[in-house]
Amino acid sequence: MHNSSAPERGFDTAEFSARTKNAQAQMAAADLAGILLMTEQEVRYFTGFHTLFWQSPTRPWFVFVPATGKPIAVIPEIGAELMRRSWLEDIRTWSAPAPEDDGVSLLTELLAPLAQEGARIGVLKGHETLLRMPLGDWERLMAALPRLETADATGIVQRLRMVKSSAEIEKLGYICGVGSAAFARVPEFISEGMPLEEVFREFRRTAIGLGADDAPYLVGAADRGGYADVISPPSRRPLQAGDVLMLDTGCTWDGYFCDFDRNWAIGFADDKARRAYDVLWRATEAGIEAARPGNTCRDLFMAMSGVISEIDKSGGDIGRLGHGLGMQLTEQPSHAAFDETVLTEDMVLTIEPSLSYGDGLMMVHEENLVVGAGDARLLTDRAVPELPVVTG
Amino acid sequence: MHNSSAPERGFDTAEFSARTKNAQAQMAAADLAGILLMTEQEVRYFTGFHTLFWQSPTRPWFVFVPATGKPIAVIPEIGAELMRRSWLEDIRTWSAPAPEDDGVSLLTELLAPLAQEGARIGVLKGHETLLRMPLGDWERLMAALPRLETADATGIVQRLRMVKSSAEIEKLGYICGVGSAAFARVPEFISEGMPLEEVFREFRRTAIGLGADDAPYLVGAADRGGYADVISPPSRRPLQAGDVLMLDTGCTWDGYFCDFDRNWAIGFADDKARRAYDVLWRATEAGIEAARPGNTCRDLFMAMSGVISEIDKSGGDIGRLGHGLGMQLTEQPSHAAFDETVLTEDMVLTIEPSLSYGDGLMMVHEENLVVGAGDARLLTDRAVPELPVVTG
Repeated sequence: MHNSSAPERGFDTAEFSARTKNAQAQMAAADLAGILLMTEQEVRYFTGFHTLFWQSPTRPWFVFVPATGKPIAVIPEIGAELMRRSWLEDIRTWSAPAPEDDGVSLLTELLAPLAQEGARIGVLKGHETLLRMPLGDWERLMAALPRLETADATGIVQRLRMVKSSAEIEKLGYICGVGSAAFARVPEFISEGMPLEEVFREFRRTAIGLGADDAPYLVGAADRGGYADVISPPSRRPLQAGDVLMLDTGCTWDGYFCDFDRNWAIGFADDKARRAYDVLWRATEAGIEAARPGNTCRDLFMAMSGVISEIDKSGGDIGRLGHGLGMQLTEQPSHAAFDETVLTEDMVLTIEPSLSYGDGLMMVHEENLVVGAGDARLLTDRAVPELPVVTG
Repeated sequence: MHNSSAPERGFDTAEFSARTKNAQAQMAAADLAGILLMTEQEVRYFTGFHTLFWQSPTRPWFVFVPATGKPIAVIPEIGAELMRRSWLEDIRTWSAPAPEDDGVSLLTELLAPLAQEGARIGVLKGHETLLRMPLGDWERLMAALPRLETADATGIVQRLRMVKSSAEIEKLGYICGVGSAAFARVPEFISEGMPLEEVFREFRRTAIGLGADDAPYLVGAADRGGYADVISPPSRRPLQAGDVLMLDTGCTWDGYFCDFDRNWAIGFADDKARRAYDVLWRATEAGIEAARPGNTCRDLFMAMSGVISEIDKSGGDIGRLGHGLGMQLTEQPSHAAFDETVLTEDMVLTIEPSLSYGDGLMMVHEENLVVGAGDARLLTDRAVPELPVVTG
């Protein structure tokens, strides 16, 4: 069942080297002596360190990207074997967990020479970031290095990660293909009476069988004439004639996500649902059309909301109409009125218009694409232009 | 294929009310006017808000547990519909993402009256916690409330979460049963020549088919005579006669994890691997035997390491020999020499001895149990006492 056309896993060392050099060029311009990273995707971006073990919250992990040279890892010993397979040379470990000193003294030792000079290092403090270490340990680290200055390096890292390499695009294209194939099977396995929970279960098994490593993100809903919520886990309610079913999935392959959805009517579709679907399909077209170099995320948002306003003038409560896509289900930038990010070639984006209709119902469409020199290239098999009705 | 004996999803309101009252009793003793929470499991623990949408890093989510009364949610509008189904009454929302003000002014407004009084609130700053909001926003919030004191409330929340309710134990028992059934199928679908990646794929499909919602955590390894690493994703290397295969999974059901592993020899097993397995099986027995009220995590660690030292005196680099289990793959406490937590009834724990042997090889065993009045009750089907050999 598994599609054997999968790309190679991992990346060449040249790719990590280029990422590091690009970061260092921006660091030099921003007068940063290094960037301290501690989140899964940032650590992976600069080292290739790839493990599901991040799901355990117990241990912190650190990578320091210096002004020149290779990144330095400061990590729990349990990860040493895997990190040694990376391109890094300087790997410092401790036997974690160690609540009294979970890497803090190793970090202090690493950063002390920079603190001595009164240097400035970057950390991620901005939008869409988090501090993946205990706040108390962060405060202790800063207290131990009073002469070290910190600055927000969110922009540097996010600008780099927004534009994908060809190897990244190949992985993203592959998992979008698997997701498309899985969605194509849905009409074959759903029918009236099937509990939504079982629909989810069968979708996951199908996607993994078709070549996804996993389908960690799967949300959706089904209800009479439409659904009111798009982030819930499934109920056991059986599918009924007249329902609109939506499934939205983030399947993964080699640590890269697809993120798109599909809608189906069960048995029959009412006019309101057909109309909402038609408007969203055309809003998606407008979004795809606007996804070209030189346009901004705001332009993309405006192009979609222009169509959406045919039946919904509220602008919606979702906050945005799509986003970046890569190692995370949702990444920078945001297709929103506030985001003036200029699109460039090789950005991978979701186009995700949504609207409210009827009595408290909502509908969402979503496709994934890569920005090209001219027209964008869809990575997902485009949804059909009319709300598909599943019968039998 | 799906086991229909699954418990009910979710919890009664009485459970959330009891959790909140227990927290409030501890808050009163610690002179805290509230606890501010922002991580998935803590928000779910006090509200029941359960969604995979936490995988998107874009939006922060906040719940404030006041000194008396129900928790208050300060969340993105996209989660309002789902949160309204919870037992909460005070739900404050904003249209996120909003990089300029992602909940900070709503939090400031909520906490200002407490700051006015110079009150002290709890936040999670300790071991195994993280700050799930931008550090810059946290700094802005604190700057806006200069008279508000904060204190570390990690102990309060972790002590509560460590001891499971009967409904939680039912969910954990169910997913451990599903995991056990999935491991029992492994010898039926593996054989020499099967790439490890396909073993993983088939395990996930099997576990989901048997009733898991997902198998988000699946690591493992297979190599000649044993494996050297326990946190890697799978290679495409085909299984070969003489390999030891290990699979370690965190399957989920209704937001609760199992976390255990199994080992198999492919074709035949050498004496060193058999010996390592035997020692670990007996170390696990010693751990299970020691898991009774009044003993500490340190006692559990000592009981296991006593057996492990028959062939490995290093103590290992893993850092601990098991941990708590619940909404997270790994939770407090830790079976380690540093952890003096006294075991009490209804703690759910992993027993996870590991050792090094041969030329850089390692082996891990793992079972899940609930601490009882006397003997612990195993939630997993106990591994067989001798390294099982899969032939054919």
